[in-house]
Amino acid sequence: MIAAFIDDISPQLVKWRRSFHREPELGFMEYITTYKIGKELQRLGYTIYLGKDVMQDESRLGVPENKKLIEQETIAQEWGVEESWLHHMRGGFTGVIATIDTGKTGNHLSFRFDIDALPIDECKESSHFPSQHHFASAFQNVMHACGHDGHMTIGLGLAAFIAKYINELKGRYTLIFQPAEEGGRGAKAIVDKGWLDDVDYFYAGHIGIQPLAVGEVAATTEGFLASTKLNVTFQGESSHAGMQPELGKNALLAAATAVSNLYAIPRHSEGITRINVGKLMAGNGRNIIADNSKMEVETRGITRKVNQYMFEEAKRIIESAASMHDVHSHIEEVGSTNEIVCSEELISHISACCANGVYIKNIIPEITVMGSEDASYMVDQVQKNGGKATYMLFGTHLHYPHHHPRFDFQEELLPVALETFIRIVLAERTSS
Amino acid sequence: MIAAFIDDISPQLVKWRRSFHREPELGFMEYITTYKIGKELQRLGYTIYLGKDVMQDESRLGVPENKKLIEQETIAQEWGVEESWLHHMRGGFTGVIATIDTGKTGNHLSFRFDIDALPIDECKESSHFPSQHHFASAFQNVMHACGHDGHMTIGLGLAAFIAKYINELKGRYTLIFQPAEEGGRGAKAIVDKGWLDDVDYFYAGHIGIQPLAVGEVAATTEGFLASTKLNVTFQGESSHAGMQPELGKNALLAAATAVSNLYAIPRHSEGITRINVGKLMAGNGRNIIADNSKMEVETRGITRKVNQYMFEEAKRIIESAASMHDVHSHIEEVGSTNEIVCSEELISHISACCANGVYIKNIIPEITVMGSEDASYMVDQVQKNGGKATYMLFGTHLHYPHHHPRFDFQEELLPVALETFIRIVLAERTSS
Amino acid sequence: MIAAFIDDISPQLVKWRRSFHREPELGFMEYITTYKIGKELQRLGYTIYLGKDVMQDESRLGVPENKKLIEQETIAQEWGVEESWLHHMRGGFTGVIATIDTGKTGNHLSFRFDIDALPIDECKESSHFPSQHHFASAFQNVMHACGHDGHMTIGLGLAAFIAKYINELKGRYTLIFQPAEEGGRGAKAIVDKGWLDDVDYFYAGHIGIQPLAVGEVAATTEGFLASTKLNVTFQGESSHAGMQPELGKNALLAAATAVSNLYAIPRHSEGITRINVGKLMAGNGRNIIADNSKMEVETRGITRKVNQYMFEEAKRIIESAASMHDVHSHIEEVGSTNEIVCSEELISHISACCANGVYIKNIIPEITVMGSEDASYMVDQVQKNGGKATYMLFGTHLHYPHHHPRFDFQEELLPVALETFIRIVLAERTSS
Amino acid sequence: MIAAFIDDISPQLVKWRRSFHREPELGFMEYITTYKIGKELQRLGYTIYLGKDVMQDESRLGVPENKKLIEQETIAQEWGVEESWLHHMRGGFTGVIATIDTGKTGNHLSFRFDIDALPIDECKESSHFPSQHHFASAFQNVMHACGHDGHMTIGLGLAAFIAKYINELKGRYTLIFQPAEEGGRGAKAIVDKGWLDDVDYFYAGHIGIQPLAVGEVAATTEGFLASTKLNVTFQGESSHAGMQPELGKNALLAAATAVSNLYAIPRHSEGITRINVGKLMAGNGRNIIADNSKMEVETRGITRKVNQYMFEEAKRIIESAASMHDVHSHIEEVGSTNEIVCSEELISHISACCANGVYIKNIIPEITVMGSEDASYMVDQVQKNGGKATYMLFGTHLHYPHHHPRFDFQEELLPVALETFIRIVLAERTSS
Repeated sequence: MIAAFIDDISPQLVKWRRSFHREPELGFMEYITTYKIGKELQRLGYTIYLGKDVMQDESRLGVPENKKLIEQETIAQEWGVEESWLHHMRGGFTGVIATIDTGKTGNHLSFRFDIDALPIDECKESSHFPSQHHFASAFQNVMHACGHDGHMTIGLGLAAFIAKYINELKGRYTLIFQPAEEGGRGAKAIVDKGWLDDVDYFYAGHIGIQPLAVGEVAATTEGFLASTKLNVTFQGESSHAGMQPELGKNALLAAATAVSNLYAIPRHSEGITRINVGKLMAGNGRNIIADNSKMEVETRGITRKVNQYMFEEAKRIIESAASMHDVHSHIEEVGSTNEIVCSEELISHISACCANGVYIKNIIPEITVMGSEDASYMVDQVQKNGGKATYMLFGTHLHYPHHHPRFDFQEELLPVALETFIRIVLAERTSS
Repeated sequence: MIAAFIDDISPQLVKWRRSFHREPELGFMEYITTYKIGKELQRLGYTIYLGKDVMQDESRLGVPENKKLIEQETIAQEWGVEESWLHHMRGGFTGVIATIDTGKTGNHLSFRFDIDALPIDECKESSHFPSQHHFASAFQNVMHACGHDGHMTIGLGLAAFIAKYINELKGRYTLIFQPAEEGGRGAKAIVDKGWLDDVDYFYAGHIGIQPLAVGEVAATTEGFLASTKLNVTFQGESSHAGMQPELGKNALLAAATAVSNLYAIPRHSEGITRINVGKLMAGNGRNIIADNSKMEVETRGITRKVNQYMFEEAKRIIESAASMHDVHSHIEEVGSTNEIVCSEELISHISACCANGVYIKNIIPEITVMGSEDASYMVDQVQKNGGKATYMLFGTHLHYPHHHPRFDFQEELLPVALETFIRIVLAERTSS
Repeated sequence: MIAAFIDDISPQLVKWRRSFHREPELGFMEYITTYKIGKELQRLGYTIYLGKDVMQDESRLGVPENKKLIEQETIAQEWGVEESWLHHMRGGFTGVIATIDTGKTGNHLSFRFDIDALPIDECKESSHFPSQHHFASAFQNVMHACGHDGHMTIGLGLAAFIAKYINELKGRYTLIFQPAEEGGRGAKAIVDKGWLDDVDYFYAGHIGIQPLAVGEVAATTEGFLASTKLNVTFQGESSHAGMQPELGKNALLAAATAVSNLYAIPRHSEGITRINVGKLMAGNGRNIIADNSKMEVETRGITRKVNQYMFEEAKRIIESAASMHDVHSHIEEVGSTNEIVCSEELISHISACCANGVYIKNIIPEITVMGSEDASYMVDQVQKNGGKATYMLFGTHLHYPHHHPRFDFQEELLPVALETFIRIVLAERTSS
Repeated sequence: MIAAFIDDISPQLVKWRRSFHREPELGFMEYITTYKIGKELQRLGYTIYLGKDVMQDESRLGVPENKKLIEQETIAQEWGVEESWLHHMRGGFTGVIATIDTGKTGNHLSFRFDIDALPIDECKESSHFPSQHHFASAFQNVMHACGHDGHMTIGLGLAAFIAKYINELKGRYTLIFQPAEEGGRGAKAIVDKGWLDDVDYFYAGHIGIQPLAVGEVAATTEGFLASTKLNVTFQGESSHAGMQPELGKNALLAAATAVSNLYAIPRHSEGITRINVGKLMAGNGRNIIADNSKMEVETRGITRKVNQYMFEEAKRIIESAASMHDVHSHIEEVGSTNEIVCSEELISHISACCANGVYIKNIIPEITVMGSEDASYMVDQVQKNGGKATYMLFGTHLHYPHHHPRFDFQEELLPVALETFIRIVLAERTSS
């Protein structure tokens, strides 16, 4: 039954994946994406939730400025997203949650699939698989370079399976298609809306961390870092650089000083730390002392304590760089994640579920990664209420790393990941 | 005759000035501006030169990228610039040169008025005079914050006078309405086209250096700095900042290191130096090691030798910042100016011309400024061929410095400056 | 027998410890220290090796300059070190190795105790235990702030035990009292002399890593970092800072640029990295552009590969900082350590030996530390030849961390550590 | 009479110069130097003043620490300075003032000669003239590299002339042999003691600013910069760089950040600025986060206002660098000078005096220099009370600049400078 289902749906998985890949959207602006997913879920018979039913408004972090939201809403409108959908989503309320109840007593399982893309300009050379096969990003400077196109696809595949075999299953199912995972901005707003409060088992996952090959699945992960995302602005005073340089308050120089010193935050004895200033924009023109600058910064740490250390150091450095150059600084926290501690019991559970896999070749108990994930908030919430939660990995060879303009994964992993979720669902039939 | 002429034209001067101020355009994109000036010059009976007749194509420095040119050309078209004009100017060939010959033997006088605006967002508060009187910039992020709106106005006033009294004058007159003075990008291309080759007297000037008041005119200036304008790019490699920070080649950090060290170039014993990094853009996203950065830099020096010292230091620092962070750097020279050494004879000449001024209250022999001016190339060329040249200043009180979002000058200076030029022209009647 | 021996010798342990503490000496200058230890070992009947018999001359790293060696040799002479001893040690050939053979077939056990102090000025306040009890450092700017005074004491205690019970023991024993552990400078020279070539079991250890308490002993450690120690010099050109700043080549500014960027070397995905510029001296006088600077730098990494990455980054940064400021740089490698991988078999062996400890309360299998240790070269050499080796830790509460001017350990740990070594030696009686 | 006197004394001038050059002493430690000068002045019949009669104790800036003073006092004692002299000078009260009164009504003329050397290690190669002729510095790291050996010599020559011809002269004469000119530390303390209060004419001068040749004398100078000398300390916390880097408060990194940003203080539109960090010492050892650093800094400006700007910027930068790295900073002002505005009347006066010079070839009215001079305090005080004051320059070719280890001047300038002072003194005979 599993193999047949997956064989049948496989061509559709590839179609979905390529459609999502071709039309990527940034976090909180996944209007088209949400519409595509939501329409399909509706068709499959799910109860769906949109807009402010999905996320607690004020818990969203790093929502794009209004101008950008409206731009993308206009594009979505022109693309054909129905106004009845758009009016729920306007203002950055994207994402969709689908629920279905078997009517039979059983556990409440929740699955999370993230749906946003990255501000990267996809490689257009024909040696890049998506370009060669004509499904490279149709939008400039936006790209699914982290595999979320695959995640959504797997989510729809799972939704199709559950819908088809609903009569043979037990318990309740919640499928969360989360916006704005990049930057750790969307998950907390879903948690704060209460969606994870009575979940017994929570499963999330990601495509492709080395050295897993296609067919290999890690049941749990360790190493996801706690992190904080900061937007920093410096405000100084401009002046003519030739005539009165001493009257300028140089916000660009303040940023440069901050950058040099942020990377120099001491390492921490309790484990991994990370710091990055990924983006910097400053100044007006060549001969004017820059009166403004903006930086996008993130700190990470092996635990929330270590991340907090990085964050405190970063704040002090930024504020001192401002005072050094007599400018004002403003720090806005626009995203955050925690470390993830997977429920150990799920190692044996998933191993047992998947023991006779068709596409699945091997279950690895645990693997180490070093990214950051706001699914951590969901994991936390479920575990806090006595549930179990894990974050899995689905193997694929990668020629280029995540977030690279040439990132691409092997589509052969889609059936593997789908089989994993299906087997987890089926195992519920025998749960007590 | 002078006073009457000026009294009559004064309301028109204010109208011109406010019209130019309301519709500012950046260097090499002064399509509307050139059209307004050119139409007026044509009406006055001048022979006018446009497009590639004005500038040597390959001598232009720092021409904006094609996309931006086309954007502004479209705006100009929508504004109503005739296609017969636009087709000369497309691709950044703005500016207009007007000539008129009295038919009588005499000197060849040339006047230069610069016409470009700055990438500054004009203050919209009502306490700002242009906002209060509804002629603040209609375009976002473009502003006449250096008085070129006044310069053009004075040029048109002078053109009107010469045209009206052509029969009473001697010699030949060339009025240069130069694009792209900001950044030292346009003058050299006009010089290279040969426009200054047979000029006997060259006059340029600027509005408003402290502490001159309205009515005061400086006959010559010293202190204009030699300068070089550089565009710098760093190219590194991106990597996920959490997962594999060691694989990144950080172009943002290279830029920050360069910035800190550029400002620290040693002062020079032979006199004034300046350095500015006015603009910096780097990176893709928060969690990606930045693989790119761009900087707009300028160096200045009291002489071309001292500026050359600054430029050589800057180059070495930029290249070393690149090698330090294992990224590639590219340095493009996009503008340059020389120092100006005004012809000393013109102090007494201008003083004599203006002795009985009506609007002119006082001629100051020489004043010191510290900007940079590509009129320096014109001054050089005229002097090299045995002509005399000067750069004058026209007093005004300034509440805010040049290049400030609240920059504004007193319109009362327009008659003063116009009178100065008129008296210089009239003095030619008695030259031998 | 063990408890009685330790009870008897305990007052002597405290005396030794305090004597060593009172007269600390820096690496390769432990003339008095070596003499004190050597005389005691001689008295106990050991064959002792001094001077060039201990270390391969050219393998020593970071030997102090001659002037300093001679200074300390003079102090040692005045202190009363016999000339017959001094003449072996002159030129930085300190340390002593003691051997004893039971005459019975058995394993060759080697123990290493390090003997050097640190360039730290010990706290003289009475709240500091050594000051209160009048055994604080008698020498300015030298202090046993890393517990090597305790290590030597334990070594002498062990030597006394072996000597006393030599007839009841089996095999051979080599006690290495190593100079210049700080900075990773002495061990390799002992290894290169061949002292570790035929050792079956090698034991080294350290006092006091948190959170072990007195009575607790870690049988093995993990986490010792590979490291490289660098001395860096920059050579520029001086110039009068007021009159001709542009002629200077600023070696102090080059060093400052290097420092900022060294701390900013990216973290590494394979694990722990460290970087420190612990010392910087630059310049001649306030009004002279500095033509010289010196830095003491160290890099560390979880493996020698990761340390090599840090080292390569550091070199490039230093060389680029030099080229940026047009000065010359010179990098000298003055010390290095490897990571330590303890022989796992020794966990159960030591646990078994110490099961019935009197002073020993608890054997912890493994603990993580993050220092660097040149005992790593000894561990490597022994394991390469088929022997087993470990690095143990002896618990103590610490009010202040290692290398702090108030560092002090609980003397109650001395019997614990001595008992550990004694029990290891006694266990040999039953080895086959 | 002048030529004969100078011819006779010339061999002695060379002897004095070379003796002073051979035994240089740093500021406030010129014990031997003061003794040599004072004994000669006594022999010539002057009333001499020593110790606290010369300087106001608390007005001295940057007095060396006691340990260094005592060291040099011991050397002076061993050299043979009499105890009756030493007891006046102990504690850094060096320098000597000599007065003589003709008994005839006339002006009070004061002359200042500075006597201190620099912390520079003199070149010992035979191509360096003083080394070739065996009068290079006998003391390590101290050198007359600014010509003060020549200044004192000229002062003694003038003293000899005045003493010899006292009966032919009018008025009163005060010869100030000032300590600690380098760093602007000694002059203010002499001014505060009242020595300049009733001076009618004050003359100071310096050897050798380009491009003056031997025989050329500048009557006045412009361009001496106002300056402030700062000693800066940062106090952090040390920690083991491998084990607990996050616990360190890095005072070395704070200093590096300060250095980079100090050099980057914006240039000033009102004229020359200078900044230098001439010396930096930081840290304890390679593997310890540095808990201390010290910097010697100076700012300069064309006027005291501009210097004040530099000083305020420097303070803010230093304090912000401290807060950035969570360390404490302390700023001590250890020296200062003002700009010098020479009395214009003295141009014609000196020109007239020296019109018929024998050794003097040419009087240049004014020359520009860019050093700093605490004679500025004397010039200020004299002018404030209605006197006239100037600072002259005496030409010499220089192969290497001031403060260079190979600095040397042409001894042929000594008669030229002496003749200048003699002619100024003789001119008083005819003053009314």
